[in-house]
Amino acid sequence: MKIATLSIGDELLTGETVDTNASHIADRLYDAGGRVFKHLTVPDDVEAIAAALRELAGESDVVVVTGGLGPTPDDYTAQAAAVAAGTELELSQGALAHLARFEERIKGGLHPANRRQALLPKGCTLIDNPLGTACGFVVNISGADLFFLPGVPYEMERMLAESVLPPLAKRLPAPWRRVTLKLFGIPEAAIAERLAGVFPENSPVQLAYCVKYPEIHLILRSAAEHAGLLKEAVEAVRERLESFVFAKDGETMDDRLALLFRESGLTLALAESCTGGMIASRITAVAGSSAYFLEGNVTYSNEAKTRMLKVPAELIEAHGAVSSEVARAMATGAREAAGSDLALSVTGIAGPDGGTAEKPVGTVYLALADASCCLVERYNFQGDRAGVRSITCFTALDWLRNYLLTLHGKTGRN
Amino acid sequence: MKIATLSIGDELLTGETVDTNASHIADRLYDAGGRVFKHLTVPDDVEAIAAALRELAGESDVVVVTGGLGPTPDDYTAQAAAVAAGTELELSQGALAHLARFEERIKGGLHPANRRQALLPKGCTLIDNPLGTACGFVVNISGADLFFLPGVPYEMERMLAESVLPPLAKRLPAPWRRVTLKLFGIPEAAIAERLAGVFPENSPVQLAYCVKYPEIHLILRSAAEHAGLLKEAVEAVRERLESFVFAKDGETMDDRLALLFRESGLTLALAESCTGGMIASRITAVAGSSAYFLEGNVTYSNEAKTRMLKVPAELIEAHGAVSSEVARAMATGAREAAGSDLALSVTGIAGPDGGTAEKPVGTVYLALADASCCLVERYNFQGDRAGVRSITCFTALDWLRNYLLTLHGKTGRN
Repeated sequence: MKIATLSIGDELLTGETVDTNASHIADRLYDAGGRVFKHLTVPDDVEAIAAALRELAGESDVVVVTGGLGPTPDDYTAQAAAVAAGTELELSQGALAHLARFEERIKGGLHPANRRQALLPKGCTLIDNPLGTACGFVVNISGADLFFLPGVPYEMERMLAESVLPPLAKRLPAPWRRVTLKLFGIPEAAIAERLAGVFPENSPVQLAYCVKYPEIHLILRSAAEHAGLLKEAVEAVRERLESFVFAKDGETMDDRLALLFRESGLTLALAESCTGGMIASRITAVAGSSAYFLEGNVTYSNEAKTRMLKVPAELIEAHGAVSSEVARAMATGAREAAGSDLALSVTGIAGPDGGTAEKPVGTVYLALADASCCLVERYNFQGDRAGVRSITCFTALDWLRNYLLTLHGKTGRN
Repeated sequence: MKIATLSIGDELLTGETVDTNASHIADRLYDAGGRVFKHLTVPDDVEAIAAALRELAGESDVVVVTGGLGPTPDDYTAQAAAVAAGTELELSQGALAHLARFEERIKGGLHPANRRQALLPKGCTLIDNPLGTACGFVVNISGADLFFLPGVPYEMERMLAESVLPPLAKRLPAPWRRVTLKLFGIPEAAIAERLAGVFPENSPVQLAYCVKYPEIHLILRSAAEHAGLLKEAVEAVRERLESFVFAKDGETMDDRLALLFRESGLTLALAESCTGGMIASRITAVAGSSAYFLEGNVTYSNEAKTRMLKVPAELIEAHGAVSSEVARAMATGAREAAGSDLALSVTGIAGPDGGTAEKPVGTVYLALADASCCLVERYNFQGDRAGVRSITCFTALDWLRNYLLTLHGKTGRN
């Protein structure tokens, strides 16, 4: 079944709004066994919409259309659907009844403009909208079924799930399987090299790379009947990429780290300078983090490093706040103050100012202290202030993950 | 000038990735005087890409294409561009030289797979990529200029700004003017009520609402010749919405707050519980924040509240960690420890667990201490853990903004 999607709206083509509907629909269709082969976006213009509908109807079996069903004068989708179907608009009794039900529920009643939303292409089939005034509808053009839904994401998502996917799923083949493996710390080209031979030309398991900086996602897909081969391929990828794989499917780095901390029974304190609370914010984003996260010190000033973490002022004076010596003292100081099992510290130059020839912008020291020792490493990250901060934060989380993995001899498997 | 955009990538049509490139390019073109009339997305498939290129080239003057220029076997864009242009791929000496420059900068050097990125359509013009291995290129098909850029957003954005927009801007008409006013703390319907009469039916100044939770953006647009009217409308909106307007155009809440802090000469310390470092992270996101931000305490455990902020253990015992008494003690304690002019504290229940009938999930106390007093307020936010944390963080930043505005009798104007 050939499925296309069409988004309608000026705001999508002037850049004010990111089109999240297109990816939501594609994702839901994929899990139902369908595949979108083309997506199109056009402005709020009757001729442009009608032309797009005819074009997509001519090359698809199903088209899912969103947007332009509102009550304001710049909503033209129903009119364009009538033009493309070679019919006219008429006042839909079903849509009027829908509006009447809403009238009772809304304080102050409906605006007269809402009546416009009941003008729909003659002969269309209504799609119920439990959350809004805009009815959806189905029109058949050139043998293709066109489903029209409002552009408001939460209304559209509910209607898609309740009224579009169930009838489509009956006509779709068994859904393809999909596994996403998330990697960090290894470049795309090196991944390709390690995976050489795992996915031969005609393999029923497909591999796609998806860069979500600083993460790289590997998406493995197969038809339902090749689920066994898919599983084998996932195993093969894991084997070749080892602990670079930090999570699978919906799991995030934060979730993974939370799991490892809960398993370890260890507690954590943080001492952040250039990341300014980002690492603590990620750690505490996960519910239940209070079980292992004790405290964070955002020691931006040198005075704070000395008072909160007991970093000797002379040490800062001698080596600079951005140095392996200070990173080490911050980590051991934070661990001692909090009485935690582990403490991680970060000090660096996020820029744009503060860089020197010896320590340019992007110079970052990470340190991780436990009861027996303190590891320190220097990094030279590229990027602007936001980039340096976010890659530093992700690297720190990955350090903790690897520490906990090594400690427990785990394989990093989900 | 007719401009179309094309995004290439399986991940866009299977729903793994939201296409933010399309809206970024549309936005940047709009500000340069251009308008995208159509956007298309196709999968990583030579024939589908080549067909899309030919279709868009036939109906456009300019096409901006993103994606599919990586080093992996599923990157087909260069090949499809050659097919659509009726030419062949050849090893580009310029692209090889670009790769060689990257080789020197990257630890461990480039992988052999990267060499694939130098295979480009014969006779194309290169577009420099200062941030990655994939060169962009320009190809002319059927009289249209097609600009090919990588899909990695930060690489694409830099190349668009430096190498695509400047030559296009020379061929575009005078850009429409656009002013974005950003609001917080007032609902959409109340904004509409306050603005009644400001934008009459045939006003040459257009108004659009854009909800970017928790912010609401008002976008005012006019043709270049109505710049005077646009300016007046902006003034009228500001007058009616007063300090609910926190920023304008590209400025963020973080930027605005940074400006107010620099002007005030005051210093700040933070004490965060449920936000876990988010507020500190936002404050330190701005370059130069070390001038006013001294330190942050992420006191997740009660013991940390007592040790770091001198909150009496009995106070926590008596009122609970989430209480106005503890919020106040955290703020005054943080201020005293840091020796700062101001200290802001947050304690709350982000959920999903920890709520009670009296203090349900979403109960948050904010406190702000200066030399003379300490303000405390209770909020009952709605939403999941991430939602409660982010609205708490934004509310805290807005508290600081309003404090600094009031202190200095400023109007909040940019």
